[in-house]
Amino acid sequence: MGAHYLDNSATTRVLPEAAEKAARLMTEGYGNPSSLHALGFAAHRALEEARELLAGRLFAKPEEIFFTSGGTEANNLAVLGAAEALKRRGNRIVTTAAEHDSVLAAMDALEKQGFEVIRLAPDSRGHIAPEQLDAAVDARTVLVSLMLVNNETGAIFPVEAAGRALRRAKAPGLLHVDAVQAFGKLDFSPARLGADLVTVSAHKIHGPKGVGALYVRKGARISPRALGGGQEKNLRSGTESVPLIGAFGEAVRMLPKVQETLPKIQTLNALLRAELAQLPEVALNSPQDALPYVLNFSAGRVRAETMLHFLSGREVYVSAGSACGKAKPSHVLTAMGLPKERVASALRVSFSRFSTEDDVYALTEGLREGLRTLSHP
Amino acid sequence: MGAHYLDNSATTRVLPEAAEKAARLMTEGYGNPSSLHALGFAAHRALEEARELLAGRLFAKPEEIFFTSGGTEANNLAVLGAAEALKRRGNRIVTTAAEHDSVLAAMDALEKQGFEVIRLAPDSRGHIAPEQLDAAVDARTVLVSLMLVNNETGAIFPVEAAGRALRRAKAPGLLHVDAVQAFGKLDFSPARLGADLVTVSAHKIHGPKGVGALYVRKGARISPRALGGGQEKNLRSGTESVPLIGAFGEAVRMLPKVQETLPKIQTLNALLRAELAQLPEVALNSPQDALPYVLNFSAGRVRAETMLHFLSGREVYVSAGSACGKAKPSHVLTAMGLPKERVASALRVSFSRFSTEDDVYALTEGLREGLRTLSHP
Repeated sequence: MGAHYLDNSATTRVLPEAAEKAARLMTEGYGNPSSLHALGFAAHRALEEARELLAGRLFAKPEEIFFTSGGTEANNLAVLGAAEALKRRGNRIVTTAAEHDSVLAAMDALEKQGFEVIRLAPDSRGHIAPEQLDAAVDARTVLVSLMLVNNETGAIFPVEAAGRALRRAKAPGLLHVDAVQAFGKLDFSPARLGADLVTVSAHKIHGPKGVGALYVRKGARISPRALGGGQEKNLRSGTESVPLIGAFGEAVRMLPKVQETLPKIQTLNALLRAELAQLPEVALNSPQDALPYVLNFSAGRVRAETMLHFLSGREVYVSAGSACGKAKPSHVLTAMGLPKERVASALRVSFSRFSTEDDVYALTEGLREGLRTLSHP
Repeated sequence: MGAHYLDNSATTRVLPEAAEKAARLMTEGYGNPSSLHALGFAAHRALEEARELLAGRLFAKPEEIFFTSGGTEANNLAVLGAAEALKRRGNRIVTTAAEHDSVLAAMDALEKQGFEVIRLAPDSRGHIAPEQLDAAVDARTVLVSLMLVNNETGAIFPVEAAGRALRRAKAPGLLHVDAVQAFGKLDFSPARLGADLVTVSAHKIHGPKGVGALYVRKGARISPRALGGGQEKNLRSGTESVPLIGAFGEAVRMLPKVQETLPKIQTLNALLRAELAQLPEVALNSPQDALPYVLNFSAGRVRAETMLHFLSGREVYVSAGSACGKAKPSHVLTAMGLPKERVASALRVSFSRFSTEDDVYALTEGLREGLRTLSHP
């Protein structure tokens, strides 16, 4: 295939093993896991097998894993469910201005309900400092929600410092970590992070779109949002998507150890940085110490959509900021204080373990050509 | 295959064509529909193709179809979203005591918020009378939510009468119809029903678990519940599950016309009723005019779970009430005023267009044997 897919933070190609698992659970293991007969029991076992695979990878207990329809639902459940459960214990919520839309929109809703929401701004390199968390978290803080890896820049946020800030302030708050972009790419466990709630998603790790999970630390209490038959121990009602959950489990099973893949990604990232250094119009927006799976940069004064379209014509696929925002200017780069024109021309390259040097060269050749033909003098 | 699957109201076997579509959209058409490159555009087209297929079958416009993670999410969105959007216009909500858990649990939540919720009780045959709706709906009613076909008995509820009651009362309310069990089995359209909101689900029509849709009449306004990137015109954020939505579309494409299948199902239902008439221990719980896809009956004094287990051992799969409730006593049969022992021994047989006379005979032989060996004198 001639195509060069470098948009893996938006979504990934599903592994054949995961797709086959899904298809098998659709046409053979199609029972309802709540049904009290052999087909139902088999479906239930498929669910629990996936739950154990995911728990194992997170160094968590299977009963701490709750499947959802994806990262957005898990983030909504964590943020809105924690605030609802703890609203009598305090009024303050701390987050960053660089979170995913599914966290930020939930925060806006909580603010309308009367919560005081503190949104920490990243610095110009995309970093959040531990001191910002210390200053923001007080004894009435009911929730801190922050990403482990930012989806647009790859910047790593100081999650452990958030946990320490909560303990130091003797706050009743829970710590929620959106680990969608970190899962499988960075070594972490909820316990080591000090996290009570952790969001992961299948379609960023070569599983299918439409399934994610929320880790909920044993003992942590949040309110449900999906109401009904009481599936997932009453935290998330609705017939479980056994095929997608099974495929998620397969994708987790196939995940290599972080250290098996990271050196290769570091090499690709270094190669891309070296190639970009030869293009004087390019300015990097990702910090030097970002997770190397993501590199964000601005390319001259060519609008990102124009460049995306040009690159897509050469079968090179990257993104402008996150995929979710479509053509909106990036709230992350804006929060970093970057000038408007630089935000408007920002591109995000995101690698997967299947990316190659060829992909990098195809991109940089395309960029060079694009800058030459699309730039206005 | 020797197995006899008669639990199609719980879930259905996915059609190979639908499963293949899902697998293809996982491994080939894997773009994020929000991505601004060729792979993203292709995924977007796959979404819109499914939306058109579903809209066509519902005699609706594609822009009136909003995909969700299933029936539960669609029911929650309809009920909670309508109440939130209309709360300044009135305080009363009318529903029945025989709705799905995902409607009833949402109603409980609204009651806690201060809404007055009227739950109409079905009569002993499972019917809701139009007069009950007329009496309950007043000028401050903001929502009527009612099933088209009851999932446990197959009873058909008077949805058109609900629309008339709203108009007669000059109420601002929306009419929500949970059509999960009716879709593909009964001819209807939202317009003909007078419905503003209609819930459907893929896994009841040989599509996969994990995807459903809410029809929202053009002009009707409800508040979103999934907050984030603004997908589905801001009504349902979260990366769309392109594989499942595509498979849902295929399942809709493969749906025969209602009249092509109904006579066969009527014949199977009549055969089952005739066979059951020979078992004096059996009492029917479904009304005579129920949708023939479902037949609910109580079998002597054998507890349903015991009989399910016995039948499962013979590869005959039926259910006790709905699958979602697991071992809870049926709220539907209880609301019908049936005695406890009859509720405890109630079984639900549910056909699909692939059911056969063999399935019926396997069931009734199993029942006869079960009643003989499991009954206590």
